[in-house]
Amino acid sequence: MFPMILFLFSLFLSSTHASEQEFCVANLKLPPTPAGYACKDPAIVTVDDFVFTGLGKAGNTSNIIKAAVTPAFVAQFPGVNGLGLSLARLDLAPGGVVPMHTHPGANEVLTVIQGSIVAGFISSANAVYYKTLKKGDTMLFPLGLLHFQINAVGVTSVALVGFSSSNPGLQILDFALFGNDLPTELISKSTFLDPAIIKKLKSVLGGTG
Amino acid sequence: MFPMILFLFSLFLSSTHASEQEFCVANLKLPPTPAGYACKDPAIVTVDDFVFTGLGKAGNTSNIIKAAVTPAFVAQFPGVNGLGLSLARLDLAPGGVVPMHTHPGANEVLTVIQGSIVAGFISSANAVYYKTLKKGDTMLFPLGLLHFQINAVGVTSVALVGFSSSNPGLQILDFALFGNDLPTELISKSTFLDPAIIKKLKSVLGGTG
Amino acid sequence: MFPMILFLFSLFLSSTHASEQEFCVANLKLPPTPAGYACKDPAIVTVDDFVFTGLGKAGNTSNIIKAAVTPAFVAQFPGVNGLGLSLARLDLAPGGVVPMHTHPGANEVLTVIQGSIVAGFISSANAVYYKTLKKGDTMLFPLGLLHFQINAVGVTSVALVGFSSSNPGLQILDFALFGNDLPTELISKSTFLDPAIIKKLKSVLGGTG
Amino acid sequence: MFPMILFLFSLFLSSTHASEQEFCVANLKLPPTPAGYACKDPAIVTVDDFVFTGLGKAGNTSNIIKAAVTPAFVAQFPGVNGLGLSLARLDLAPGGVVPMHTHPGANEVLTVIQGSIVAGFISSANAVYYKTLKKGDTMLFPLGLLHFQINAVGVTSVALVGFSSSNPGLQILDFALFGNDLPTELISKSTFLDPAIIKKLKSVLGGTG
Amino acid sequence: MFPMILFLFSLFLSSTHASEQEFCVANLKLPPTPAGYACKDPAIVTVDDFVFTGLGKAGNTSNIIKAAVTPAFVAQFPGVNGLGLSLARLDLAPGGVVPMHTHPGANEVLTVIQGSIVAGFISSANAVYYKTLKKGDTMLFPLGLLHFQINAVGVTSVALVGFSSSNPGLQILDFALFGNDLPTELISKSTFLDPAIIKKLKSVLGGTG
Amino acid sequence: MFPMILFLFSLFLSSTHASEQEFCVANLKLPPTPAGYACKDPAIVTVDDFVFTGLGKAGNTSNIIKAAVTPAFVAQFPGVNGLGLSLARLDLAPGGVVPMHTHPGANEVLTVIQGSIVAGFISSANAVYYKTLKKGDTMLFPLGLLHFQINAVGVTSVALVGFSSSNPGLQILDFALFGNDLPTELISKSTFLDPAIIKKLKSVLGGTG
Repeated sequence: MFPMILFLFSLFLSSTHASEQEFCVANLKLPPTPAGYACKDPAIVTVDDFVFTGLGKAGNTSNIIKAAVTPAFVAQFPGVNGLGLSLARLDLAPGGVVPMHTHPGANEVLTVIQGSIVAGFISSANAVYYKTLKKGDTMLFPLGLLHFQINAVGVTSVALVGFSSSNPGLQILDFALFGNDLPTELISKSTFLDPAIIKKLKSVLGGTG
Repeated sequence: MFPMILFLFSLFLSSTHASEQEFCVANLKLPPTPAGYACKDPAIVTVDDFVFTGLGKAGNTSNIIKAAVTPAFVAQFPGVNGLGLSLARLDLAPGGVVPMHTHPGANEVLTVIQGSIVAGFISSANAVYYKTLKKGDTMLFPLGLLHFQINAVGVTSVALVGFSSSNPGLQILDFALFGNDLPTELISKSTFLDPAIIKKLKSVLGGTG
Repeated sequence: MFPMILFLFSLFLSSTHASEQEFCVANLKLPPTPAGYACKDPAIVTVDDFVFTGLGKAGNTSNIIKAAVTPAFVAQFPGVNGLGLSLARLDLAPGGVVPMHTHPGANEVLTVIQGSIVAGFISSANAVYYKTLKKGDTMLFPLGLLHFQINAVGVTSVALVGFSSSNPGLQILDFALFGNDLPTELISKSTFLDPAIIKKLKSVLGGTG
Repeated sequence: MFPMILFLFSLFLSSTHASEQEFCVANLKLPPTPAGYACKDPAIVTVDDFVFTGLGKAGNTSNIIKAAVTPAFVAQFPGVNGLGLSLARLDLAPGGVVPMHTHPGANEVLTVIQGSIVAGFISSANAVYYKTLKKGDTMLFPLGLLHFQINAVGVTSVALVGFSSSNPGLQILDFALFGNDLPTELISKSTFLDPAIIKKLKSVLGGTG
Repeated sequence: MFPMILFLFSLFLSSTHASEQEFCVANLKLPPTPAGYACKDPAIVTVDDFVFTGLGKAGNTSNIIKAAVTPAFVAQFPGVNGLGLSLARLDLAPGGVVPMHTHPGANEVLTVIQGSIVAGFISSANAVYYKTLKKGDTMLFPLGLLHFQINAVGVTSVALVGFSSSNPGLQILDFALFGNDLPTELISKSTFLDPAIIKKLKSVLGGTG
Repeated sequence: MFPMILFLFSLFLSSTHASEQEFCVANLKLPPTPAGYACKDPAIVTVDDFVFTGLGKAGNTSNIIKAAVTPAFVAQFPGVNGLGLSLARLDLAPGGVVPMHTHPGANEVLTVIQGSIVAGFISSANAVYYKTLKKGDTMLFPLGLLHFQINAVGVTSVALVGFSSSNPGLQILDFALFGNDLPTELISKSTFLDPAIIKKLKSVLGGTG
């Protein structure tokens, strides 16, 4: 008798399937919209579209800031499209630092998995909130506010970072100021820094003009 | 003199027409986005895109649950795309039941048009809210919570159901557990039901594994 | 053995209960916010907070427009607070009409339960969409656009109306123009209607100035 | 040493670039979605996509209402797509008026740049809010409510108008009622205006039927 | 000279401070609204409002399901109020399981920190997505859909879980069905389970009726 | 006859009035919520709640940056609460500059009313967009991205600025880095600036530590 239920709901289920958006795995080949990417056909979606395997591997911190960020944003993990969340892994070798930066599109929550990290942010009211986080500690960084993370111990620290958007964006202050072709004169006028200092920083960060 | 107004605003009106989204009739041939489907060209939209005629006809309740759901979701009624609402008609023959289910994407409001229905839902706090609804009574079922409807009288009951989304989704508990290929071992471990019972239910509900 | 699960989750469940917002029955005694009213304490919420019984009764159409609207908005049905939906019942006696109006805060969907109704709306692009709806027919009216409903038959017609907001608002054109103290001169300048006509309409609709 | 940072983040930055939606300049050639248009490829976006030059020029007020509206909505200014804002310039020659109208899709804020304007709106509760605004004064007009602006002085008045949507829409009352093919009978029944008056207004506003 | 800047912006900064909502630490003593709790006075907010220290400690898995969930939702971590995110820690001892459940209010993303977990969910279209996750693997569970997690190895597994809401809610299937006073007759009719089985499960899960 | 309509709708209108949120003038005495402030009682709202008169007056630019920002955010203009928009006036004397800053909570649109301004922003992808704007030109600055405005002519320039939020926030880079008690060591590590330079800037910008 029960199979009749199947008959009853089959039309219903198949029709809702066509426009299923309880998930919407990104089709990165089509242009995005303000609400995210168009959905991959559910008929070819598999469990692997919902699984990301990159956060288990340490990033390469053999660089000047001794840090590595491994993102699982919509570009790397299309399954987060439209879900209002994404992730990243942060590795900080001894002496490592994620320089002052903002995420223009998402609130952030960081949990220390290994080691210890000094982290902080500055509010619009110019209040400073910073603390030395230990393993297991979690800290929030509201959308759009300048913040930083610095390794606080002599071993590599690792954190798992969550965001309230599938595409948080990242604006690193030093790069935004000194790593592009914004003319030195405009930088100087808008930051009160000496042109000589700006030119010097541009030379090391790849900026021109 | 007045026709000059027409001239004045004609450019304005025609230009806004091009991106008109005070309505956005779904073009179901294009892939959806997290915010819904792309819009059908307004130039070919007619009043019939805003009218749905399927809710006036009784669903076929000659099935094991003696129930029928007739949806007017975006897949059936493209005019609701982007409007944050949709509808369905529910027919419950004597003894009919809509088994325990959830709508992952929408709040629901049900109004009894004919007959009487016992309906209820269970909250995250595990509180139970149920009542026997009479003709003209309305009941709310919040998004994502388990709920059910059972005919309370010896004649067919009919309800008109509204949703707060153009694509509410529907997850019927028995089907989700016993109507697919989720392995019996995983079902048993995650529900504490005996494998024998699971296998029996799978056999009648079409499940495998 | 199982009762240990209860122990395990009891803290969890009770703590989430405190901030439960999978529903938020309005406390109408506190001032609303842009997102709706503060929530009634879940501890005193009962099933009756989710049930509305007023839509089963015919409205009184013994008036000049031979029509009655029975709202189940947040003010009448606090359970809809925060759920993004609300309802109303429409009764149209023979000759009855809901005059040209808008809902500034919600999209509308109307389903004819009894009789027949001529309904229509006008878009920003000045396109007219109207149709004679029969019993069981459903029609959409996008947010903020002028629309109307007129009984199309010699018997009382009834419709169930859904909205995409808990508080749709209602601006009836004739009342907005002629039923308040907006000075006749300003009305005339902004509508091109003759002051004499305006004063006449004000006299019957209760307007002054 | 610093260039190593570039190496570190280059993959990161290039990958986020692909799905960059901190801005989403509209590609008007693709059909819009409920959330706006698909994004123009960021690789070909230039500063001119974020700059609009049309609001500095007076509109042509040589028309019957002695008024001109110059919109910078998404259709004219694709850069606003997805940003939740748009603009318009309003010119009112002596005697000029923007007739009673609504914006179905946006709240409005008007600032007088030159001259003086009498402006007002009517709420759902039928309250009237109007005032004579001087140069530098700002006034709000909530979404979907009837409002008007009338020049209050003997010289041309100019206002800069902001909206809370990239596509506010515009429904001018006289046009909606008398400038299309909505049958006179339906207009008369839904506005209580005399058919003769309606036909006269239709003749001057271009309406038929 | 520079201190004059301080003077210039001091009024500005202090005034924005009063309504600062770039963060809104919950005042749990006031009733919530549909958008969350009222904000704690920023003047008494400290860095500790943005830091949660509970996720570093293993939960107590000495229970029948050999599992523990440690939430950092708004009730435990008021700093997440209004930020659209929250967290939890999951401990699964050998043989441990998080039984079939849903989060009515949030999408979920789980990352395995230690051990290995079999996890899966079922879609509205009745498709099953499950996989054995290893340390470092991440999996998504869309809002409102039934899902489960089972330890896959002989040691304790640990996961860090993120949600797209400050208050995800939790509805555990067995508790919703058998851990309250929903009458056995209604459960039986809406699940097709035998009343004897239901009564047995009620007896172990604390249900009555 | 018409007054009967008044009777018909009077209950309706008065009841919707109680929860009117087509506008929600902020009651700044109550704590805000994530969605804004509680609403002032509509019964005491007047047209002046929707009118702001401060943008017509030039700000005082007799300061080191020769600039003044006059905000009309929710703190100054409670009528914008919940409307998703706000305004500000910008005065730039000759040589004036609004230093590099972000608005964490809103997209911005600036229109030059007088003079000429060089303005620009930097994207997450580190692309620079800047241009010399003339009177009447409009430019967009997406949420959370660093941007600046510099007077481009020898006379005072004035701009009217719109935001997509009632409370945009403002984080000025120099103040965030050097105008508070963030320790010099943390600033140096997170910006690569020399401690001596930092201490010098702190001394002029009021920072300590």
